[in-house]
Amino acid sequence: MSEATMQQANHYVALMARPQGFPSASDFQLRSQILGTLSENEIRVQVHSISIDPAMRGWMNGGKSYIKPVEIGEVMRALGVGQVVASNSKLYAVGDWLSGSFGVQEFWQGDASNPYGNLEKISLDKASIAQHLNCLGMPGMTAYFGLLEVGLAKAGETVLVSAAAGAVGQSVGQIAKQLGCRVVGLAGGPEKCAMVVNEFGFDECIDYKAGALKAQIKTHCPNGVDVFFDNVGGDILDAALTQIATRGRIVICGAISQYNNTHPVLGPTNYMALLVKRARMEGFVVFDYVQRYTEARSQISNWIQAGHFHSKEDSVYGLENFHSALMMLFEGKNKGKLILQICA
Amino acid sequence: MSEATMQQANHYVALMARPQGFPSASDFQLRSQILGTLSENEIRVQVHSISIDPAMRGWMNGGKSYIKPVEIGEVMRALGVGQVVASNSKLYAVGDWLSGSFGVQEFWQGDASNPYGNLEKISLDKASIAQHLNCLGMPGMTAYFGLLEVGLAKAGETVLVSAAAGAVGQSVGQIAKQLGCRVVGLAGGPEKCAMVVNEFGFDECIDYKAGALKAQIKTHCPNGVDVFFDNVGGDILDAALTQIATRGRIVICGAISQYNNTHPVLGPTNYMALLVKRARMEGFVVFDYVQRYTEARSQISNWIQAGHFHSKEDSVYGLENFHSALMMLFEGKNKGKLILQICA
Repeated sequence: MSEATMQQANHYVALMARPQGFPSASDFQLRSQILGTLSENEIRVQVHSISIDPAMRGWMNGGKSYIKPVEIGEVMRALGVGQVVASNSKLYAVGDWLSGSFGVQEFWQGDASNPYGNLEKISLDKASIAQHLNCLGMPGMTAYFGLLEVGLAKAGETVLVSAAAGAVGQSVGQIAKQLGCRVVGLAGGPEKCAMVVNEFGFDECIDYKAGALKAQIKTHCPNGVDVFFDNVGGDILDAALTQIATRGRIVICGAISQYNNTHPVLGPTNYMALLVKRARMEGFVVFDYVQRYTEARSQISNWIQAGHFHSKEDSVYGLENFHSALMMLFEGKNKGKLILQICA
Repeated sequence: MSEATMQQANHYVALMARPQGFPSASDFQLRSQILGTLSENEIRVQVHSISIDPAMRGWMNGGKSYIKPVEIGEVMRALGVGQVVASNSKLYAVGDWLSGSFGVQEFWQGDASNPYGNLEKISLDKASIAQHLNCLGMPGMTAYFGLLEVGLAKAGETVLVSAAAGAVGQSVGQIAKQLGCRVVGLAGGPEKCAMVVNEFGFDECIDYKAGALKAQIKTHCPNGVDVFFDNVGGDILDAALTQIATRGRIVICGAISQYNNTHPVLGPTNYMALLVKRARMEGFVVFDYVQRYTEARSQISNWIQAGHFHSKEDSVYGLENFHSALMMLFEGKNKGKLILQICA
């Protein structure tokens, strides 16, 4: 009996209810199923690790967005890295390592050519699994294209980055340093701020929990903020707007402070600063740049090899800890890119 | 005694207090003064008409903006058109018609080369005084550069314009029609909506007072809004954000709904649509394009001559009616560009 014809027990985390505010443990359920034998062109991937992302909160909501919502009862969507353990496809062989939209589960099984799987073969020779989920994965791609294509950051400019200790933030700051920018981070608490400066090489980091946000940004960005890369929204976006430089660019990457609201999103009350400063606020979706991921990965890999780029991850173990990992993220308790490791 | 050495009695409207919320009559005072004889390089202009602009409300506030505030006791700032009645300058002769930042007063007197006066010689051969304050003045320039340089409107795109019956809005829509866009206006009440369609040639006009704003925009812009030219802010901006097209551009020109707030500006709660739609929101200040006003005026004049462009103004008479004219504007009672005529 070939591997491809064997059945496989699979544990997965299903979305059981659309969260109101912060997700609660009861919004998810750890379930098991038997995966059938592989059909023509299908592969089976043993998921090693998944990425815990702020965007997951949006995927749990109903309604139209840039991607369809996760349906109730379905496996929760997640990007991950895994290894092919069975293949009926000519595209991938047993033993290959892949990144893809595998979901919060032990095994992913599906058509190897399905574009929605976002399957991509990766090499673990020069980069770890964690790096493939961080600076070489979606967070790194988000940072790279957001900063360069939307933020249009140039040498000598001041770049301010919110959630600087997080997955996207750490890459944004380090890419900006490589471009020759002055880079200021925003993070919560002295420990994270120290990490942002000492490990990621930002010029400065502002502790947003210390208050006086507007005054702090003004002090650390005395010539104004040319590019504000925002992952947070809310009060942080409003404070940054007051310090935006003439012709400044605000890159709308996320709004983690607003994702778990039970009231409407707090719109930026200082948005008219865009007029006064001839500035712009622009959003983007990283998937639009998928044809250029190879270029970005090669650039970031070179910086890593040259010792100019540091990738930091924070791992949690076990499918059963999916909900608590998610809460770590929304409470800002992770230090570096948060990863849920599923198999040893 | 030459005209230049004569004194001149002048009535002017002074700002007496920084308004809280809507300006009240007591925030202004009609005063008189005697203007001294002209110094070297000075001219005296008899102000014929001034432009009543939403931007005036911002000029009454203290604090930093794109232009310094009007000081308490000073003549209220206003753009206007007037005629030189005395000159000690080689730049302008008695009889010349000028546009400039003359203020709410009968006579302006100052250095003819002062760049803050924004003095510019105009011709009344092909255009009226009112047109020089409307489509050939700041509102027209604002419409032209905002739509072309910030909105990047192109033939075939859908352009949505708020305050479509107002000074800037009427020009935005007509320029967009000349570019080959589908143009939808937003205005208050059936009478204004009819004017927007019948006089200014918009394809459609939505009555925002009729409610169901989001649904109305969706109906009239079935392929989404490529360019939203916003003069209003608040709920209208939020509704438009829900219908923005992929890679749409929101031109932040003004926010008249928010200028008289006694609470903070209502930030656009739907701003994350920028991310989902890869869209942008960008502000601008028309003064940045001053070097290109001639180009814009010549283009708009040609359209007027060809019968493709209609300029509509609504006039109020007398300095003493400055406050009530301002209130007409903020209450949306004007039909077309609002002008205060000062001398007969």
